[in-house]
Amino acid sequence: MYKVTFKFEDGSLVEAFAAEGENLLEVARKTNVAIDAPCSGNAACGKCRVQLLSGELEAEKTAHITEEEYAQGWRLSCVSKVIADVEVMVPDIASAYKSRMKIADLDSAKEVEIFEKTESDLKAAGISFENDLEVVRVTMNPPSLDDTMPDMERVTWAVKEVCQTEQVKIPFYVMKKMAETLRTYNFDVQCVIRKGSGKVEVLDLCPPKEELKVCGMAVDIGTTSVAALLIDMISGKILAKASTGNGQIRYGADVINRIIESVKPGGRKKLQDAVIKETLNPLVAQMCRAAKIRPQMIYRMAVAGNTTMNHLLVGVDADPVRMEPYIPTFFELENIYAQDLGLSIYPHARLIIAPNIGSYVGGDITAGTFASSIWNKSEMSLFIDLGTNGELVFGNEEFMMSCACSAGPAFEGGDISCGMRATDGAIEACVIDKETMEPALSIIGDEGQKAVGVCGSGIIDLISELFRCGIINPKGKFVREGARIRHDKYGMGSYVLVFKEDAASVKDVEINEVDIDNFMRAKGAIFSAVRVMLNSLDFTVDMIDNVYVAGGIGSGINMENAVNIGMFPDIPIEKFHYIGNSSLSGAYAMLLSGQAEKKVAEISRNMTYLELSNEPTYMDEFVASCFLPHTDATLFPSLTFK
Amino acid sequence: MYKVTFKFEDGSLVEAFAAEGENLLEVARKTNVAIDAPCSGNAACGKCRVQLLSGELEAEKTAHITEEEYAQGWRLSCVSKVIADVEVMVPDIASAYKSRMKIADLDSAKEVEIFEKTESDLKAAGISFENDLEVVRVTMNPPSLDDTMPDMERVTWAVKEVCQTEQVKIPFYVMKKMAETLRTYNFDVQCVIRKGSGKVEVLDLCPPKEELKVCGMAVDIGTTSVAALLIDMISGKILAKASTGNGQIRYGADVINRIIESVKPGGRKKLQDAVIKETLNPLVAQMCRAAKIRPQMIYRMAVAGNTTMNHLLVGVDADPVRMEPYIPTFFELENIYAQDLGLSIYPHARLIIAPNIGSYVGGDITAGTFASSIWNKSEMSLFIDLGTNGELVFGNEEFMMSCACSAGPAFEGGDISCGMRATDGAIEACVIDKETMEPALSIIGDEGQKAVGVCGSGIIDLISELFRCGIINPKGKFVREGARIRHDKYGMGSYVLVFKEDAASVKDVEINEVDIDNFMRAKGAIFSAVRVMLNSLDFTVDMIDNVYVAGGIGSGINMENAVNIGMFPDIPIEKFHYIGNSSLSGAYAMLLSGQAEKKVAEISRNMTYLELSNEPTYMDEFVASCFLPHTDATLFPSLTFK
Repeated sequence: MYKVTFKFEDGSLVEAFAAEGENLLEVARKTNVAIDAPCSGNAACGKCRVQLLSGELEAEKTAHITEEEYAQGWRLSCVSKVIADVEVMVPDIASAYKSRMKIADLDSAKEVEIFEKTESDLKAAGISFENDLEVVRVTMNPPSLDDTMPDMERVTWAVKEVCQTEQVKIPFYVMKKMAETLRTYNFDVQCVIRKGSGKVEVLDLCPPKEELKVCGMAVDIGTTSVAALLIDMISGKILAKASTGNGQIRYGADVINRIIESVKPGGRKKLQDAVIKETLNPLVAQMCRAAKIRPQMIYRMAVAGNTTMNHLLVGVDADPVRMEPYIPTFFELENIYAQDLGLSIYPHARLIIAPNIGSYVGGDITAGTFASSIWNKSEMSLFIDLGTNGELVFGNEEFMMSCACSAGPAFEGGDISCGMRATDGAIEACVIDKETMEPALSIIGDEGQKAVGVCGSGIIDLISELFRCGIINPKGKFVREGARIRHDKYGMGSYVLVFKEDAASVKDVEINEVDIDNFMRAKGAIFSAVRVMLNSLDFTVDMIDNVYVAGGIGSGINMENAVNIGMFPDIPIEKFHYIGNSSLSGAYAMLLSGQAEKKVAEISRNMTYLELSNEPTYMDEFVASCFLPHTDATLFPSLTFK
Repeated sequence: MYKVTFKFEDGSLVEAFAAEGENLLEVARKTNVAIDAPCSGNAACGKCRVQLLSGELEAEKTAHITEEEYAQGWRLSCVSKVIADVEVMVPDIASAYKSRMKIADLDSAKEVEIFEKTESDLKAAGISFENDLEVVRVTMNPPSLDDTMPDMERVTWAVKEVCQTEQVKIPFYVMKKMAETLRTYNFDVQCVIRKGSGKVEVLDLCPPKEELKVCGMAVDIGTTSVAALLIDMISGKILAKASTGNGQIRYGADVINRIIESVKPGGRKKLQDAVIKETLNPLVAQMCRAAKIRPQMIYRMAVAGNTTMNHLLVGVDADPVRMEPYIPTFFELENIYAQDLGLSIYPHARLIIAPNIGSYVGGDITAGTFASSIWNKSEMSLFIDLGTNGELVFGNEEFMMSCACSAGPAFEGGDISCGMRATDGAIEACVIDKETMEPALSIIGDEGQKAVGVCGSGIIDLISELFRCGIINPKGKFVREGARIRHDKYGMGSYVLVFKEDAASVKDVEINEVDIDNFMRAKGAIFSAVRVMLNSLDFTVDMIDNVYVAGGIGSGINMENAVNIGMFPDIPIEKFHYIGNSSLSGAYAMLLSGQAEKKVAEISRNMTYLELSNEPTYMDEFVASCFLPHTDATLFPSLTFK
């Protein structure tokens, strides 16, 4: 047994023990030290680098570590074996991908505006937000020798009267505490009820004088990030908003690696625990603390996630999703409750899970499509969700077609050496001076926040600016020289955005040709998907009336730059709308509105799915799109610097 | 810490450790040594006697132990404190009440005939026994790139086709194992389904070639005994029959003492564990072994028990049942499943629980009334269930009234020093020679079985014979002398049925005046209840067309003797019918027939309840009935020896 000490940039330490020869990344995982390994420990991505401070590691040098870096102690943790007591430094960027949980400040949260906008759009589209949860005070005559009605009937009759309903359902779990609750409060209680058509279900019996909040939670479970809203179900008010990394990230950055982990012995439980016990439950706890409510007051949860996230969440074998012919177990899922999954909210809280429509188009897209309101418009709309993958929906009130493309996690900062999620320390926008090649940056966080890395919207800007300034060519290769431009001994160029002296990082924040190449593949995947899908419908890009862009790419996304790099079609900029986390907006609507829940199911049943890999033109389109902006520059007529 | 060794009549030993001063009965309970304490350890019943073989016990002499017995080492375990290492002998009679589990031999089981008779009577009454559980083979096309329907829909469609139904429900727990099961067996599986009106619910997915038995279990949970039938749901055949003592018995012989135990800290769980983990689950295991099936193949369970048993079974506070104004939490209970209670059968097996109609008339009576078919007859019938208490139902197809009387456990051998359940070693019938006063006995068990004690039917015979032979007077006092008749120094008489040399017991099997008095109170409670109930309806005993007697009193019950002692009204003997365990028969019918389930609910809703303690004449009637046969001998005109 050797002692392994993980040291962080803020000076904090975590200690662990490792067996002779144990893999350092595994030790970190076991110890809950977040080290990103998007490639799941295959030495392919180079993100899991740590710096040896003392002791020894058995670790070959890989292509991701230069000789100079190797000499400075840099190692990939995924190929490092512990062979002595060792101290390693884990740079912030190694765990920036899995950022710390963040309770958003509601007043300043731009997203709240977006939810309100979504809600008013949906109302305009005829969706009513009539919440069906309620608290009623129920007072009964205590039983006597002349009135020996059993408790269940007594409560049933009283609720019938209070709610003016014919049918009252009281489940077993409420019955279990009935005798005691009624007698403790002398047959005067508050009931949390759910009103249906002519029916009332009693969800909880509570003391008469407790200030009872009936809450709900909307959750977007992304492959990379999890975002949630805590709602007062009676007033519809947002009580708290928070986001955190998906705890599953240490088992791989993408759904494929997660599924591979999940089919190992005990893996399904491990992945489920990672999202429920390590992600959702702590998120619930923090949000409840912030809103000063008890988690037991969360009586409903609405979840939107992709097909794999949904399968791993409920603990269902996801392997067939990954393996040809790519078959999920379920699209829709009903009658599932918090206690079935071990969610630490009211154990009998119903879970609303946005339905999947295919292995690679899941509930995040059905919920998001709903939130975008494109299903209610006569104009043709394109909905693009830039999550860890890219999904597209095109259509209007008459038809909708969806497809998914393997964009990878680049839009959320994955697969990019300096990439990170759109959170504190992320460069979310940049402009480069064509002459001096000096950048002007916009960094997420408080005044004075130093840069840690670059998030999706920042990378779009950066590549667009490097291209506009002629620093890189259409192939993404560096063609100018300067103080910020470097070439390694293999000739690979890079551009330094922030030198390490000015960064909140032990390394320079720089982007290299591999990063640019990765990002070009990602944006190429999106653009070619748009082309192939429209083509299959005999549409052209000028027939698109609106483009709704959603996802964790960051609200600062510069649509013009996204067009400039050939990510989005070259149509008038005013047609583009950033709608934030539409998956979360959709979950929010489903939480509060039975009509919304029904409509999402309807949308999912009616939406067709185009499997891009079956389309003969897709591969050619994709290859042609992996240029700046495209091999066919006529597709981008408005570009002046191509 | 002292060592306590319990020695049994068969020579076997159980060792335990006890703290200084610990109560011996408590030590026995903790150690799972069955020592009956019907009075729940209050030194009132005298049944928990053990014999000190070595060591010491701090134990006062009580009225239940003679000086001679005290000198021989006899002590009541409930008042004994451990103050040294000690060895005690636990006589069989001390645990006869909680007899060992018994798997009945089906071929010879009289009861099977009774179930068959019940079933044919119910069929004649229009109840169809159309079982709704089925196994269907479902073969699907495996998915392909051209056929990417998710598993859930694939199974749904296939079941729709096989079952010719429009609506298929697949619950979450089936979905969880769907992907793996389908792929392991190449989309060729067996489904256990439940057919409803136009709907099919898939309960289980199984391998295609497994020999699949779909079983059900009917259980009568009595205060003293638990009896069960294991049924092949497809063929309706009884696969096994078994009975055992209710494990709760160590917390008291009657429902009141059980409830008192259940309200102590942790008590509800303790009582629930006693009936589920210690009684039902072992019973299930043994029956399944006997029938060569797996407990997971039990897909449904029907339970009939009294109101308190039902409450303790499902873990609901039973205290209000005991306390004025005697309010149960529930009459009917739906949507409850095996896993909710920790029953070790198929976790999602539905539980059918026969509804209660009052605090002292429970599901055993509603199920039993149903089984008796009295609800379908124009003639007036009296249904009497002699369980640990006595319950009566009187009526016909137009009305039914029920009442309960505190007969106590005497009919099952409780409250009687030599009493035991109707199982091996029980004297179930006896005739006494009027001249010699020598008894001729009929003992339950194989050829050569020696007597352990006397069961209910035996006690009826015994008292009737003692009375007929003039050995006891109408007050139950001994008035003749003889070799078998003794008087202790307080003058209390007793009659020895079997001297210990000839008995499977360390003591003579004898009945004393206290026993006779206890039994007279029990039979008096029944008779006076009949009188008061009929009176309240302006009926007289000669208007009774049939009397159906049910309960664990033993199939050998001699109706003539029961009339002779004034337990039943003096009407023609041919009107009496012993219908066995009607509670179990009712549960059996509910298990197999949805119509039966509905009818029992209907019966329970329509039956009225007479609270005897509210009837002003009841106490006088009761007192008058505590004689042989009655203070008013004109009520028994056909008796020749009164």
